[in-house]
Amino acid sequence: MSEKQIKSVGIVVKPNHAEALETAHELSVWLGTRGISAKQKDFENVDLAVVLGGDGTMISAARLLQNLDVPVLGINYGSLGYITEFRIEELYDALEMVLAGNFETDQRLTLDVTHLRNGKVQSKNRVLNDVVINKAALARIISIETLLDGLYVNEFRADGLIVSTPTGSTAYNLSAGGPIVFPTMNSVVITPICPFTLSNRPIVVPDSAEIELKLKTDNEDVALTLDGQIGFELTTQDVIKVAKSKTTLNLIKPHNRNYFEVLRNKLKWGR
Amino acid sequence: MSEKQIKSVGIVVKPNHAEALETAHELSVWLGTRGISAKQKDFENVDLAVVLGGDGTMISAARLLQNLDVPVLGINYGSLGYITEFRIEELYDALEMVLAGNFETDQRLTLDVTHLRNGKVQSKNRVLNDVVINKAALARIISIETLLDGLYVNEFRADGLIVSTPTGSTAYNLSAGGPIVFPTMNSVVITPICPFTLSNRPIVVPDSAEIELKLKTDNEDVALTLDGQIGFELTTQDVIKVAKSKTTLNLIKPHNRNYFEVLRNKLKWGR
Amino acid sequence: MSEKQIKSVGIVVKPNHAEALETAHELSVWLGTRGISAKQKDFENVDLAVVLGGDGTMISAARLLQNLDVPVLGINYGSLGYITEFRIEELYDALEMVLAGNFETDQRLTLDVTHLRNGKVQSKNRVLNDVVINKAALARIISIETLLDGLYVNEFRADGLIVSTPTGSTAYNLSAGGPIVFPTMNSVVITPICPFTLSNRPIVVPDSAEIELKLKTDNEDVALTLDGQIGFELTTQDVIKVAKSKTTLNLIKPHNRNYFEVLRNKLKWGR
Amino acid sequence: MSEKQIKSVGIVVKPNHAEALETAHELSVWLGTRGISAKQKDFENVDLAVVLGGDGTMISAARLLQNLDVPVLGINYGSLGYITEFRIEELYDALEMVLAGNFETDQRLTLDVTHLRNGKVQSKNRVLNDVVINKAALARIISIETLLDGLYVNEFRADGLIVSTPTGSTAYNLSAGGPIVFPTMNSVVITPICPFTLSNRPIVVPDSAEIELKLKTDNEDVALTLDGQIGFELTTQDVIKVAKSKTTLNLIKPHNRNYFEVLRNKLKWGR
Repeated sequence: MSEKQIKSVGIVVKPNHAEALETAHELSVWLGTRGISAKQKDFENVDLAVVLGGDGTMISAARLLQNLDVPVLGINYGSLGYITEFRIEELYDALEMVLAGNFETDQRLTLDVTHLRNGKVQSKNRVLNDVVINKAALARIISIETLLDGLYVNEFRADGLIVSTPTGSTAYNLSAGGPIVFPTMNSVVITPICPFTLSNRPIVVPDSAEIELKLKTDNEDVALTLDGQIGFELTTQDVIKVAKSKTTLNLIKPHNRNYFEVLRNKLKWGR
Repeated sequence: MSEKQIKSVGIVVKPNHAEALETAHELSVWLGTRGISAKQKDFENVDLAVVLGGDGTMISAARLLQNLDVPVLGINYGSLGYITEFRIEELYDALEMVLAGNFETDQRLTLDVTHLRNGKVQSKNRVLNDVVINKAALARIISIETLLDGLYVNEFRADGLIVSTPTGSTAYNLSAGGPIVFPTMNSVVITPICPFTLSNRPIVVPDSAEIELKLKTDNEDVALTLDGQIGFELTTQDVIKVAKSKTTLNLIKPHNRNYFEVLRNKLKWGR
Repeated sequence: MSEKQIKSVGIVVKPNHAEALETAHELSVWLGTRGISAKQKDFENVDLAVVLGGDGTMISAARLLQNLDVPVLGINYGSLGYITEFRIEELYDALEMVLAGNFETDQRLTLDVTHLRNGKVQSKNRVLNDVVINKAALARIISIETLLDGLYVNEFRADGLIVSTPTGSTAYNLSAGGPIVFPTMNSVVITPICPFTLSNRPIVVPDSAEIELKLKTDNEDVALTLDGQIGFELTTQDVIKVAKSKTTLNLIKPHNRNYFEVLRNKLKWGR
Repeated sequence: MSEKQIKSVGIVVKPNHAEALETAHELSVWLGTRGISAKQKDFENVDLAVVLGGDGTMISAARLLQNLDVPVLGINYGSLGYITEFRIEELYDALEMVLAGNFETDQRLTLDVTHLRNGKVQSKNRVLNDVVINKAALARIISIETLLDGLYVNEFRADGLIVSTPTGSTAYNLSAGGPIVFPTMNSVVITPICPFTLSNRPIVVPDSAEIELKLKTDNEDVALTLDGQIGFELTTQDVIKVAKSKTTLNLIKPHNRNYFEVLRNKLKWGR
């Protein structure tokens, strides 16, 4: 429930998606007739964001909106997503409710990721789903030293390692053998990918802890991938620090659907 | 760190373990010379508990001490345990530190488990590790309807279902494919045992939620097992409610060891 | 392809299944008009068996028909099974083809299971799917010493152990983490159930080897379950010997379906 | 047991390994005093091969010796390997036995791998362990259409796919969730790597079947890796055909050790 009046709406559109682009145009007009401005870039002062596309578009949006503490409405054009839970037919009904302040949000954890080389910051980014260190296809098994709040956890020998938010737990983490994590938990999952040691199982840790990953392997092609969308090459002794972001992604929830319904549907649990 | 003066110590001894019984006797004398009383039953007013045995003895102790908010020192006679982290040789040094108030504890989550039949309470217990619903050896696959704070999660068809604390995550949960959960997290893991549907993966949920399990299967032998130590027969439509206990088990931590060291040792992560 | 003329057909009917019983009656009449006798017991001299029910009925039939080397037609009343691959609507068309000798069979491996106590045979049975040693719900982890052709494999500490045929690989074995095994392979899978040691992974071995399982655990309730349908209690030092049977179950294959289509359908591989 | 007299021995040495190089020199002298010639290349007419190094060296040797039907003695300098089962101290005793014809071999399956683009052969190779199709670190999930003897199995959406021999089953296949396969079986395991669909489990198939893998994904970096040692880039619609090789790798077995002992040691099954 939000009391704040909405004067400006940011619209994030899936690139090259004709239907989403058309909706964006219609939506701008619809908002205009209500005296609300619509923005497709420079989101700094928006009061609400509408994401038109699918889960991938929402993940991009999480980066675009990263310092903003606004509610976000996710519209899906295909089958329902994990994080774009409104269908395109529900767009205007949902907006009416949001404008009336009649809505609730899930505060989804995001993570700040800092890539350091010789102690110097190479990049800083925010992720909604996961941080992945991965060997190249032709590379051999790699070694990743892992610390939690400075405490030595293990040196994982594996194809790679995933640090996943609860939101990301149903993505790559699940394929790699990690657990489903309820979306509003203050947790992060560390999941080795195809580990050499079979007892190197996924570990759920508090999101308040700083995770430090150091690449120990030399002479192999290794990459850092953020949310499956942004990539960087890593070299030996590079350090990745992962910590809870100050802001969350505030997903507007449908009234008539819940998290487990999404799980049952996406993971084909039904008979 | 605790400022409270210790006047009375409860001693929990592994049954039929000669060495532990002998230690208990010595320890009573040692405490007596310091003006501290030692109790081996009626633990109501003790200020500290010492557990002599292994992880199994600690699990029993958690039930005996369940309403007490006292620090607990776990002494292990064999290889180091997950929750009995002091060796017998370290007993008196550890006690000196505890009496001096020079110690820290891990607050380990425990769960209250209520077994209901036709709405009537059959039993109430507390667990440190896990709540397990399990079919008998000759029974067929069973169905367990699962709710979280009244919200329908799924009807799991499986050999059984584990609800595990973080402390229990490295026990049965791990063998059944569940993740390791950092011990101080406010989390519970729901792990189906040999599920019929392969996408029924372990789910990590907040410990603030009430979990309700209802046995849907008829005409099969099914049991409820608490911490692997106490068992009850279940009949169709029986309900098990699991919720966070008010008190935690306050494990005294060794200064020179940490959780990940225990993991690396117990799970043979080292090369 | 079979040249032998069919004079007598055994019919195995799912117990208490009205529709299957009705079909059995109709089928007897249909066969009678062709001069073929129908039998619902004493299958010794039948030339063909028809199983009316589902996978469970086929598994029972495999025991009833165990010394017979006849083709078997499996009819399923519900959703298609793994081993009852004809729909009820296809019954008479399939029979016409079989009577004309226009069919092929899959030779499915079955296993002879001998239960020994103090060296004395307690029971001998044949299984189509699996041999399972399983602890009771309230029992603790059990130990099973495993030999292959007399060679020591391991002492498995687990909830139990599955020895599965290729046919059984998609049943309990799959839920316990075992692989899918192509149905006509000369292989057996040994899969520990919830093993204490996480590297105790399923092992595929030749069906020509004799597997010997010895229960090492004392004072716990443990059972032997054959094909999920027949059960025996085990006591410590009991030995289970498992070896390839002389006869196979000869499943008549549908012309228009194949094994992978069944897998894709049953395991929901499709998008 | 082999009756053939050994006149020429091929020696495969781990590159840049001083101790192995020294052994190779000594071994040449030792053989010379017995009138046996030693070769370090041009292995065409050798009667025996000695591999000095570790499992990786043996895998290379399997390619060098691929058309030869000679016994192979594997010497390991470090901890015992899966396929180099003699310790360096055992070298000359083992050789004496081999020269006396007093030995047995395991016939290890190898696979012929053909890479086709637009129907034209790009490369032909032989593997002892595995054929891996793998996406690059920054690539998204890929799709691999899989056929068995021309029969459609599935289109796997995953990080990649492993086709493993029994010998390779304890290597990458095991880390990816595949089963252990007894080394002399006529089996191949198809194991998807981190599959999107959780029921896409490893499949054990006969080695007599031809496996055909077609890359369906466009615009992503994908590689073919053979035995973890040789790599090729793949483009969309490329086809990989995998079939049983005519010759096996004939590993000389130690008298005093067996396969399960190796497993128990390497996988830390012991208590």
